[in-house]
Amino acid sequence: MAELPLREELRQEKAYGAPQLNVDVRLNTNENPYSPSPAIIEDFLTQARGIMGELNRYPERDAVELRTALADYITRRTGVAVTEDNLWAANGSNEVLQQLLQAFGGPGRCALGFTPSYSMHPILSAGTHTTFHAIERDAANGFAIDIDKALAGIAEYQPDVIFVTTPNNPTGGTTSLADIETILNAAPGIVIVDEAYAEFDDGPSAVTLIEQYPTKLVVSRTMSKAFDFAGGRLGYFVAAPAFVEAVLLVRLPYHLSSLSQLAATVALKHSDDTLSTVAKLAQERDRVVARLEQLGYAVIESKSNFVFFGHFADTAATWQRFLDDGVLIRDVGTPGYLRTTIGLPEENDAFLAVAEALAAER
Amino acid sequence: MAELPLREELRQEKAYGAPQLNVDVRLNTNENPYSPSPAIIEDFLTQARGIMGELNRYPERDAVELRTALADYITRRTGVAVTEDNLWAANGSNEVLQQLLQAFGGPGRCALGFTPSYSMHPILSAGTHTTFHAIERDAANGFAIDIDKALAGIAEYQPDVIFVTTPNNPTGGTTSLADIETILNAAPGIVIVDEAYAEFDDGPSAVTLIEQYPTKLVVSRTMSKAFDFAGGRLGYFVAAPAFVEAVLLVRLPYHLSSLSQLAATVALKHSDDTLSTVAKLAQERDRVVARLEQLGYAVIESKSNFVFFGHFADTAATWQRFLDDGVLIRDVGTPGYLRTTIGLPEENDAFLAVAEALAAER
Repeated sequence: MAELPLREELRQEKAYGAPQLNVDVRLNTNENPYSPSPAIIEDFLTQARGIMGELNRYPERDAVELRTALADYITRRTGVAVTEDNLWAANGSNEVLQQLLQAFGGPGRCALGFTPSYSMHPILSAGTHTTFHAIERDAANGFAIDIDKALAGIAEYQPDVIFVTTPNNPTGGTTSLADIETILNAAPGIVIVDEAYAEFDDGPSAVTLIEQYPTKLVVSRTMSKAFDFAGGRLGYFVAAPAFVEAVLLVRLPYHLSSLSQLAATVALKHSDDTLSTVAKLAQERDRVVARLEQLGYAVIESKSNFVFFGHFADTAATWQRFLDDGVLIRDVGTPGYLRTTIGLPEENDAFLAVAEALAAER
Repeated sequence: MAELPLREELRQEKAYGAPQLNVDVRLNTNENPYSPSPAIIEDFLTQARGIMGELNRYPERDAVELRTALADYITRRTGVAVTEDNLWAANGSNEVLQQLLQAFGGPGRCALGFTPSYSMHPILSAGTHTTFHAIERDAANGFAIDIDKALAGIAEYQPDVIFVTTPNNPTGGTTSLADIETILNAAPGIVIVDEAYAEFDDGPSAVTLIEQYPTKLVVSRTMSKAFDFAGGRLGYFVAAPAFVEAVLLVRLPYHLSSLSQLAATVALKHSDDTLSTVAKLAQERDRVVARLEQLGYAVIESKSNFVFFGHFADTAATWQRFLDDGVLIRDVGTPGYLRTTIGLPEENDAFLAVAEALAAER
């Protein structure tokens, strides 16, 4: 690769992505451990026959049927009446965020995020030549956003794009709507509230603020987590219709395949059934947290399907120890902490067994 | 949208895309008129059941099985032995080209193309902040690349990326391997030979030049056209392995859904059957060309599944006239010319009937 005329800033980069290892218990990418229901599979297969017969034709370019199904879901879920004009969908929230950065970030513009947070935010910023500024979250306060530091950072950097992830990945806690409003009022540009894990939290969604901040607020979401749909790749955002018009200027035409549109639309139709797994996972999360605390670990409060816990003197060695015992968790690069996804009860048991053995060795 | 803090250069833009109109005869986006075979559909549905059951898991991130199937296809088709290390796939060739521009173009860099050509090349360049320079093709010579003008343009602009589309869209003609080599030898950066319509041409592929130009040549292709797979969204490139390593640095993780990977892999397995439609379309193309010439139209020689024809004093009005008679073709913005896709025999008849009526009115 050294001989290729690659952009200079990429030469020291490595390809992003957690290890995809063949391990019994994989708790490293916040996947939902439950498969799509048989009803979803049958419904998809029935309709896929028709779609496959027309696969020689380009997909419906603006995915209106899917966006309508997403609007119905958001309306039911948040109580805020939205339509397909408020919704935009793409191949995973990564593509949604990349499109927003292309339209509102880019060369000469900057973004601001509160770290540790979703590690793709700075990577997507770099990929769109948007300068990324990081404000550290308050480790002493459950990795919450320190709102004074946030305001100081906004005043200093005047960011065109602000990322607020709530519940935050990898730490698990939430940011209140009041704090989000404080950030919105101070923001000179747009604010992307990344609610990838919203269904695991019972608090109100930032979608309730869209009417009040139509030129500033975008709420991004994904079907990867609560919807058992990581393999289907479907991310979306909710915002005032002008934001949809804006990303239409930068989206690749026909970006969403006919099969992706169908699979997501079918999954949304069955959302009530699917989301019943969310309560099970929240219960398991609380069990894992309680046991980790009992074992003497420091555990960050979580409103998501994962748990951030520590402290470890040698984080990398501890991660390897879990892997050696057949449990793949995630080292996100925050010294002293590791993240585990909530899996099936027996997977969580396997994880807790290693955690217990480690605690005994201390 | 005027109230949003959108990037300035986007404010005057319009969303790209041909009109998706509900017309009987749609010959405007170079789709293959033949549906995927029943064998493909059954094979897909059988395997999709298993894939759907695992849709809660992220897709295989590097799509190795699909890339292996693509390598087998290219090896059989071109006689050049390639492996999955030479292949890269994404959601349509648009995403493939965008990734290449992110890695090898971008701010401070420039691209060069020979116009009229695939209209997404300048749009993708703009989206990645790559300055796009256009060298006009020789209208008097079937819109061929004028190699002296090409060399002068390369010397003047020193492009980091050169696009050569062959067969060229929208004009239909090809560029010889000798001319491609001349361009490769002069190129200071990379050369992307866009072979989206390669299967409709019986000449040799630029893939045969990769071994000789490992640090310069990338051949991009798509399954949208010959493979009846426009709705499946699968583009790919063939190049030395270092190019695959390079795009791994800019690709969005898990960009290709499990269903996309499966559908494309299944379609490749049945490629011999599928490609039998190519001969039928080539035969129809030659019939349409002969009749248009008989009617007095100027027709550009085509090695693809579409025909570029003229001349029209009022191109827009002529396009509308075809539409009024129920035939949707494409006005690509080249004064005096329109493009029609080769459809089913009866669709081509409908197109020719309008062409005949128009000729009689002249």
